[in-house]
Amino acid sequence: MEIKEKSLEYAPGLEGVVACRTRICQIDGQAGKLYYAGYPIEDLAQNSTFEEVCFLLWNQRLPRHDELENLEKIFRENRSLPQEVIAFLELAPHTAHPMDALRTIASLLSCFDINLEKSPEANLQRAIFLTARFPTIVATFHRLRQNQKPVLPHPSLGFAANFLYMLFGKEPTPNQAKVMDAALILHADHEMNASTFASLVTASTLSDIYSAVASGIGALKGPLHGGANEAVLKMLMEIADPANVESYVDQALTKKVKIMGFGHRIYKNYDPRARIFKEYARRLSERTKFSRFFKINEKLEEVMQAKKGQHGIFPNVDLYSGIVYHQLGIPADLFTPIFAIARVSGWTAHILEYWQENRLFRPNALYEGPAPRAYVSMGQR
Amino acid sequence: MEIKEKSLEYAPGLEGVVACRTRICQIDGQAGKLYYAGYPIEDLAQNSTFEEVCFLLWNQRLPRHDELENLEKIFRENRSLPQEVIAFLELAPHTAHPMDALRTIASLLSCFDINLEKSPEANLQRAIFLTARFPTIVATFHRLRQNQKPVLPHPSLGFAANFLYMLFGKEPTPNQAKVMDAALILHADHEMNASTFASLVTASTLSDIYSAVASGIGALKGPLHGGANEAVLKMLMEIADPANVESYVDQALTKKVKIMGFGHRIYKNYDPRARIFKEYARRLSERTKFSRFFKINEKLEEVMQAKKGQHGIFPNVDLYSGIVYHQLGIPADLFTPIFAIARVSGWTAHILEYWQENRLFRPNALYEGPAPRAYVSMGQR
Repeated sequence: MEIKEKSLEYAPGLEGVVACRTRICQIDGQAGKLYYAGYPIEDLAQNSTFEEVCFLLWNQRLPRHDELENLEKIFRENRSLPQEVIAFLELAPHTAHPMDALRTIASLLSCFDINLEKSPEANLQRAIFLTARFPTIVATFHRLRQNQKPVLPHPSLGFAANFLYMLFGKEPTPNQAKVMDAALILHADHEMNASTFASLVTASTLSDIYSAVASGIGALKGPLHGGANEAVLKMLMEIADPANVESYVDQALTKKVKIMGFGHRIYKNYDPRARIFKEYARRLSERTKFSRFFKINEKLEEVMQAKKGQHGIFPNVDLYSGIVYHQLGIPADLFTPIFAIARVSGWTAHILEYWQENRLFRPNALYEGPAPRAYVSMGQR
Repeated sequence: MEIKEKSLEYAPGLEGVVACRTRICQIDGQAGKLYYAGYPIEDLAQNSTFEEVCFLLWNQRLPRHDELENLEKIFRENRSLPQEVIAFLELAPHTAHPMDALRTIASLLSCFDINLEKSPEANLQRAIFLTARFPTIVATFHRLRQNQKPVLPHPSLGFAANFLYMLFGKEPTPNQAKVMDAALILHADHEMNASTFASLVTASTLSDIYSAVASGIGALKGPLHGGANEAVLKMLMEIADPANVESYVDQALTKKVKIMGFGHRIYKNYDPRARIFKEYARRLSERTKFSRFFKINEKLEEVMQAKKGQHGIFPNVDLYSGIVYHQLGIPADLFTPIFAIARVSGWTAHILEYWQENRLFRPNALYEGPAPRAYVSMGQR
């Protein structure tokens, strides 16, 4: 077999394998730093907007004033869904997980794209349109499953504020809009994470951008990836009180059950996104009855630091994002769709970049099954 | 950065990297041999049925008589689509590529699956149901886009024969059914090909089997993978006559345009599937006016052998599969969906196997973008 001749080693989960080159995103796992095209995530969360970060990921530079205004305008003008797509969302079972609805509609949108042009410019336009429509798909499905009339996109609100507006039918406060905007910035990209990698593997056959994005949504849904933020909130509800944290952790460690919101394959230090989310969660918690979750989290951090800190297991982004969304009144099964609303910018940025020097992803498998054998007819089995 | 510390090398396209272990499929690229769980593809194409091969891929052994009868029965009983799914297919734009329709419906089927059970048994059942329904999805969409009434699944025909029956509204001849059955067997699995790998990357976040299969369909659609069989027929139509082959090849090699139907990353010898398809194509061609395509192909082989044989570039499965489907009266844009109808058995077999010892696929990227830099406010740009 070929793999023996080349004497290659099995790389479980492709850990440590370099699958591609990128100019978009850099993680320094030891230092706990994250950069989008060189800009620290802390600076972007504080000073930028999600629209600007989309431009940054797609172009690897910050936009000029007119370029940003133009992108904001294209986003606003392309938020609406075709009437037929809304009809689909009405027909779809409203018991479905919103990630299943989002994946199906992202896939469906390809059926409405009659432009055969495959140039980088045409694909960037598709990326912009997809990003513009993701919040509308999620909000429309959420309204319909609650037997509420969908809220049409707002003609002038920014990206994050408009999403909250379509979800709840009223304009968010500036603070709520800022928190949502920062959440989208923090989730926009993260190097070669599993959903971005799934997008690239699909894109690498020179399939279309909708196929690649649908793969990203499918991968993000899993509890080992985007689904973790939803799982954190379930865990917090189960723990219920800061006083229960120590026994919860002990039991989980004994039973070798994963404690959600901790540990990351790349970060061997505090996840910088968790630090920012924690600060938002603290501010939002100071004024509300949900501060219980924040206190549970602080206790969790303390207990985990003592028991697992020396193993490089620290809080990750999911530990505090769920609390923040919960404070904004967002139901838990929309946490991962919000992740997708942000990450589609990163998926498409990596797809467009990869297509510049595309190479089919086609690894090998190590065969460990039965040796060659003759077919046995039914009568002889 | 981590990757530097580990001093790992960039593996473009993951060529030569071993991404997982498997007991399902083995390719001997040097010898030009393909085995499903140890059984040579030639034996299976000649003696087995697609239903039996599905059992083989899912269980890595041939079924007993009662086991095969049981699987055939479950397939027959689960071919129909929910009425709501047919309504979706009616609503979908009928100009869409059938692969886009298939990917969307495979994704949609998850919304109708209210079973929360995630056991291996429940997932195998989902794999069987998905495999049972793929031919019905493709045939129903094809009938609807031609303004024809969908043909309900036949109550007693076998898997391949029923697909042709639903497509054309009449029972195929035994010879037609056998050719289609063999085509499904030949396409059922192929080790760690790009679409199977896309399925596994998505599955590795512990997302659901529908998400993973939708990723597989999206990846298969690309012209560097399943889309190649459709491209071969376009090429044959362009060449139009055996006398034009030599100049076509010369021009393509000069312009460095890929000649479809030749070359494979793993096979450095004649693709064993191409040999079998060629024999079917020869037999079908002897009696029909389409023998022109067969003659073009034979000439192509001869010219390419002389010019590229020493570089290990040989005919692959796509060179003859398109001719065979064309002879069966199947339109070119259904060639890749037929590939999907077969390959979903392999995708699901690999997914179920991978989940037995799941590990998240999370490779690294080599960062080559701007170095860390301070955020610049809009006024300063």
